[in-house]
Parts: sequence; structure tokens; C-alpha cells
Amino acid sequence: MRHHKLALCKDHYLEWVPEQAERFIKKYRMFTRDEKILVAVSGGKDSLALWDILQRLGYTADGLYISLGIDEGIGYSAESQRLAEKFATERGLKLHVVDIKSEYGETIPEIAGRTWRGKEKFCSVCGLVKRHVMNRIARDFGYDVLATGHNLDDEVAVLFSNTLTWQGEYLLRQSPVLAETPGLARKVKPLCRFYEREMAAYTLLRGIEYIYEECPFSEGSTSIYYKELFNQIEHDRPGAKLTYYLKFLEARRKGLFSEQVEIQQELHPCTRCGQPTSAPGECAFCRMIGK
Amino acid sequence: MRHHKLALCKDHYLEWVPEQAERFIKKYRMFTRDEKILVAVSGGKDSLALWDILQRLGYTADGLYISLGIDEGIGYSAESQRLAEKFATERGLKLHVVDIKSEYGETIPEIAGRTWRGKEKFCSVCGLVKRHVMNRIARDFGYDVLATGHNLDDEVAVLFSNTLTWQGEYLLRQSPVLAETPGLARKVKPLCRFYEREMAAYTLLRGIEYIYEECPFSEGSTSIYYKELFNQIEHDRPGAKLTYYLKFLEARRKGLFSEQVEIQQELHPCTRCGQPTSAPGECAFCRMIGK
Repeated sequence: MRHHKLALCKDHYLEWVPEQAERFIKKYRMFTRDEKILVAVSGGKDSLALWDILQRLGYTADGLYISLGIDEGIGYSAESQRLAEKFATERGLKLHVVDIKSEYGETIPEIAGRTWRGKEKFCSVCGLVKRHVMNRIARDFGYDVLATGHNLDDEVAVLFSNTLTWQGEYLLRQSPVLAETPGLARKVKPLCRFYEREMAAYTLLRGIEYIYEECPFSEGSTSIYYKELFNQIEHDRPGAKLTYYLKFLEARRKGLFSEQVEIQQELHPCTRCGQPTSAPGECAFCRMIGK
Repeated sequence: MRHHKLALCKDHYLEWVPEQAERFIKKYRMFTRDEKILVAVSGGKDSLALWDILQRLGYTADGLYISLGIDEGIGYSAESQRLAEKFATERGLKLHVVDIKSEYGETIPEIAGRTWRGKEKFCSVCGLVKRHVMNRIARDFGYDVLATGHNLDDEVAVLFSNTLTWQGEYLLRQSPVLAETPGLARKVKPLCRFYEREMAAYTLLRGIEYIYEECPFSEGSTSIYYKELFNQIEHDRPGAKLTYYLKFLEARRKGLFSEQVEIQQELHPCTRCGQPTSAPGECAFCRMIGK
């Protein structure tokens, strides 16, 4: 790991990763061993690695798999569900499964195909649905905290994207921890300081089977574009990704951004689902599903 | 110009550029026709184009050429001086020439070769010397404002560099206009919204002869690296550079950054040269030259 000036054998690497994760969990005050954690599991390497790490560290963490109904000739959702369930069964862990089609009558491609939002951005429909379901399961089952597998490469791509347009609200919301608000569980990203390659190495060495394919709809996404760009920068300047992300967090903590931007907008409960939303009335999810 | 969704013939292009420059000069309140302007002229396309544009717009602008004593087998300084002087002579414009070797006893490569700063970063020595001389000439000859030829590509590379390490002070200082302070002329960048390619086209169509070579010491610089990176982004997303820069200026104007970072540090006059410096005693330039 050139960026850490560190080389480890298999055994030490498999110790080092959870030790680092524990350090980040404590440093950013993500959760304690008394709290109930819900891990959003996609069947990919990051979320399965996260679940594995939390289990090894002795945290109480259940999983949530959301079946999006994406097939595209490669059985993407079916295969990722099989791998998530296999992981849970082998370890005797509890996995919630929510099937979007059976709960809401349509798959993500079907919803995206008929909504204005979807014609513009498939991924924004998918993100809206996933956020709604994650919030709902966390609330209905009384989880204190919702953990996602976002890694450093994910965070860097989002950060860069937000600086390209200098969107203050988004810049200020990007954090390893989003505090709980009435009706919403705390959201945490315990892997936010791990490089994607580090997580790939971890799952490989731990023998965790995961889905290799990216979502077929992510092809050509700006997120993948920015990741490739930063892979190039990281290649030429080892450590650049980590510096970029950590210096951003540090600068914000030290007050680089003005308080006025940080003022949270007022939230109202959605009149249909009860989840917090910025405008009075139905939330964006209910309006989209209701059409 | 894909980023502007605009295509112009030669005649209209040569009208469009000064019109745009005039718009930026007014918008950012850079200077008026009553003020005396000093243009920092390197012999390259941007600074000669700037001087040409200011003259065409009817501003009172003299030039300043600083001979750095860079030869490197291609007579870099000699050739750029020849082109700057040719430009001034042909148009009957006044050009100050400062030769670093004859004024301070050493060329830039000689100073850089013996100082700690220089062994680390040649370009930082050169920048320090140029800033000192520009400030001195502006003060000694009573110029109101110092104009440099920085274009959009320059500004974008600096902005990106400053976000990679999230340096608040540098982020906040990056501006089309730096207000005058006691002992320092106002500094302005009238070309900050023009793409480098637009300036190259302008000098070509105006028949301005300039030095094509980049400074031989700039090879492998981070600035050039970031420019290439953004050329790639611009190629894939036309307009990305301009959006990145303008949205940054807009976000800052709207108060994205906190006031506390904006508080200027106290300045003291240097005990030797009298130019403002952050620490009491001699400024960095005088300490370097005095060694």
C-alpha cells in the first residue's frame, strides 16, 4: 500500500483492516456495541466486507438486501441476492430482504422507464427508492444506525463531483456520519477511509464470494468517470485520494465553510409514509410511486 | 467554441474577445480608463494578448518585462525579451525591463541553485522574485493596478490544486481581483474567463509573434499535470472548466466559506525593501537575496 508506505502479509492484513475500521468507528463516533446496526448489503465486495468486519469486531449488525429487479440478461439482482443470502446463512446472520416489485408493484427499471426522473437519471430513481426502503426498515425494526459500504473511492468521486459545481449543501452534508434526525436513523460509512483496492483485497483474502459485475446501468456514469480520473491521479501521486478526502474533513471541522450554509432545512413528515421530507405534503418517493 | 455553443469568423472573433474582456473588467471592477495599468509581460501569448486587448480598448497600459536569465540551450529569456520588446516598439508602447542578474547579481537558476527553497522548488523561487519586482515597479512608478495574463486554464489548475489539499487561505485568495493594500497595487486577471485555446487563437489571428516554448523548468510541474487532467475533463464535458471556476466564484460570493478564514493576516513593511510581509523583519525575497 504505497499510500500508507506499508506492506503486510495475509495474516497481518486481515488483522489490520478491522483494527483500522474500529479506529474510524471510534474516531467519528459512529456507534457503540450497545447499539443495533443495520448494514445495507448489495452483494458487492464493500458491503459484504463491512458486514464481515462488524461481525468480527463484535458489533450487533443485521443486513438489509433490497432486490431492485435488475436483470439485463445477466441476472444481476438475482445473483447479488443469492450471494447476500449465502453470506448470511453461512454465518447465521439475520438478513432482511425487501423486493421492490412485490412491495410496490414495479421493478426499478419499470419505475425509471415511466417517470420523468427516470428518463433523465436511472441512478437517481434507484437511489431515491433505496434510501426510502433503508429508512423504513431502520425505523420499523428499531435500528439505531444504518451503515453503508461506501469506500474512499466512492467518497472522493462524490466530493470531486460536488466541487465541480460547488454545491454548498452537498459539500457540507458529505460526512462519515450523518446524525439522526426525528424519523431517520443515524447514517455511517465505516469504510470511508479504505481504498476500493483495499476492500477488494480484504474480501479476496477472507474468501468472501461477492458479485464482480458493476450494476449494468452504471456504465458511463459520472461516478465511474470521476473514479477513473482519480485512479490516474493516485497512480501518479500515491496518497492523493486519501489526502483529498481527509484534508476536506479537516478543513470543514476547522471552520472553512460558513455556518449559514450548514443550517439544516426544516423537515416535515410525509403525509403518506411519515418519513421526513423538505416540502410539506408527500415525499418524492411517494409521489413517484403514486403516479 | 463548444463550451459557449458559439462559432465565429475571424473578424467577429477579433471583436468578440475584447468585448468579453471589457465585460469582465467591468463586472469584477478591475480598473477604469483613468487608472494607470502595468501589464506583466512574459513574451508568451497570454500576456501579449492582454496588452494588445487593453490597448485596443483604450486603457493606459505600460508593460514590464523581467529577464530571469533562463537559457537552457534555447535562449529562453533572450528570445522572450526580444519578442516583448518587438511588440512594444511596433506599437510605440512603454516597456520597463528589469534584468535580475544585473539588479541582484544572480540569474534565477543561480539563485535557485544555492538556496534551500530552490533545491525544492525552482518555480517558487522564480515566483517570489517576480512578485517582488512587479510590486516594486508598480509602487516606484505609481501604477494603480498590476495586470497579469492568467487565463482560465491557469486558474482552474490552481483551484484544483488548492482543493486537493483544501487550503483555506489559498482558496479564498484566488480571485479575478486582489484589492490594493498599503504598499501593494491592486492585482487583476482580465483573462481569467478565457480558455487558453481562445487566447492562442486570438494571438494567431492578430498576428502577434510570441514565444511558443514553455519555460524549460516547468516540465513535469504539477500545474501542467492538472491542466492536462482538466483538458481531458473538458474534452469529455465541454464547459466543465468554466463551470468549475465560475461556480466557485459564485459560491464564495454567496458565502460558502466562513468569514473567519477570510480575515487577512496583519502585514508589516520589510525592514530592507519596505514591501509588506507577514512576519516582522525582512521579507522572504530580501532574506533569499541577502544570503
